[in-house]
Amino acid sequence: MRNYNHEEILGLEKRFRTNLINSLSGFKSLNLIGTTSKSGNLNLSIVNSVIHIGSNPPLMGFIMRPVSVTRDTYNNIKETGYFTINHINENIYRKSHQCAARYPSDISEFEETGLTAQYINGFPAPFVSECKITIGLKLAEEQLIKTNKTILIIGSVQQLILPEEIINVDGFVDIAHVGTVAGSGLDTYYSPKKLERLSYAKPNRDIMKIV
Amino acid sequence: MRNYNHEEILGLEKRFRTNLINSLSGFKSLNLIGTTSKSGNLNLSIVNSVIHIGSNPPLMGFIMRPVSVTRDTYNNIKETGYFTINHINENIYRKSHQCAARYPSDISEFEETGLTAQYINGFPAPFVSECKITIGLKLAEEQLIKTNKTILIIGSVQQLILPEEIINVDGFVDIAHVGTVAGSGLDTYYSPKKLERLSYAKPNRDIMKIV
Repeated sequence: MRNYNHEEILGLEKRFRTNLINSLSGFKSLNLIGTTSKSGNLNLSIVNSVIHIGSNPPLMGFIMRPVSVTRDTYNNIKETGYFTINHINENIYRKSHQCAARYPSDISEFEETGLTAQYINGFPAPFVSECKITIGLKLAEEQLIKTNKTILIIGSVQQLILPEEIINVDGFVDIAHVGTVAGSGLDTYYSPKKLERLSYAKPNRDIMKIV
Repeated sequence: MRNYNHEEILGLEKRFRTNLINSLSGFKSLNLIGTTSKSGNLNLSIVNSVIHIGSNPPLMGFIMRPVSVTRDTYNNIKETGYFTINHINENIYRKSHQCAARYPSDISEFEETGLTAQYINGFPAPFVSECKITIGLKLAEEQLIKTNKTILIIGSVQQLILPEEIINVDGFVDIAHVGTVAGSGLDTYYSPKKLERLSYAKPNRDIMKIV
């Protein structure tokens, strides 16, 4: 086993440390964030930190670096108040990865990567039509993380569009069935295979498989 | 396609909405959080919201519900200032799922599930010896999310213990190689299979596979 303490981590070469620490949280969600500026410039960024914040009301969040390729995303969300979250799937993960390149603000990642912007139901931010599960959100809250000046952006779900056939009778969505991918580190893509769905855990009761 | 707007989501039956909205972020990290109270009661909780916050300094975070089974975890972190994050793997995901049961505070989930608490290098919180990748953290910051009163807990990495052979020359950690699992919704476990590792994205340069 290899053991690193805090000081050893701080002393690592920058790129090594970035890869190492980015591997520690476990598997990551992989999503595209679609936005537009007030003047109509479209932006699409890849984000691996989208998390569930709450179900009632329905809230989702993601972490944004203080100065990074995602600054267009941040400015657009602040200007318009809206953004979309779009699940990356096996067919488009390479195009999605390319969205991390540092394009100038007036260049649209949609055009550069060949992904398609789609406006649905008058929602003010663009969806990605190649994505099977797409969510339209309204900015609800922003939290500045003091320790490293990253920002937690929280949105309230306004529109949810997904294939009828992957919604289970109890609301569970079979995201693997439509090829949703997972990530690790900054650059590695995975296809998750289902092991089991398990029953609600209670003290002194055996866990059962849900089929 | 099925389309839900905000009002339709609010009107859904509670359990259906919980399952549906918990599926929307994509795949989730699955970790065990190990803590101890000042009086020495051990606690182990399962968390599916651990995310990377930053590499320099090394920071990780997770979301805690305001009143929930994880209240022992919260109280212990506040009392002692320390916690561990332990990757759930294919051998222990059923035992880990059982940690979500609402045990009284004086009952240790370690004893109830058969997972083993291990103290390493004098670190004040217990590690899980069945986990291959384990991290010891010190509480760095706490952010109350106003919209729904959940809490973002942020810790600074103090100890990192993992097998030497899964650390790549550039710092990337092969978490799939040691059976780390991913989750979806509240109760479904997945084994991710690697698709590709991709080169750093730049404008006007083709993405290449890293082998």
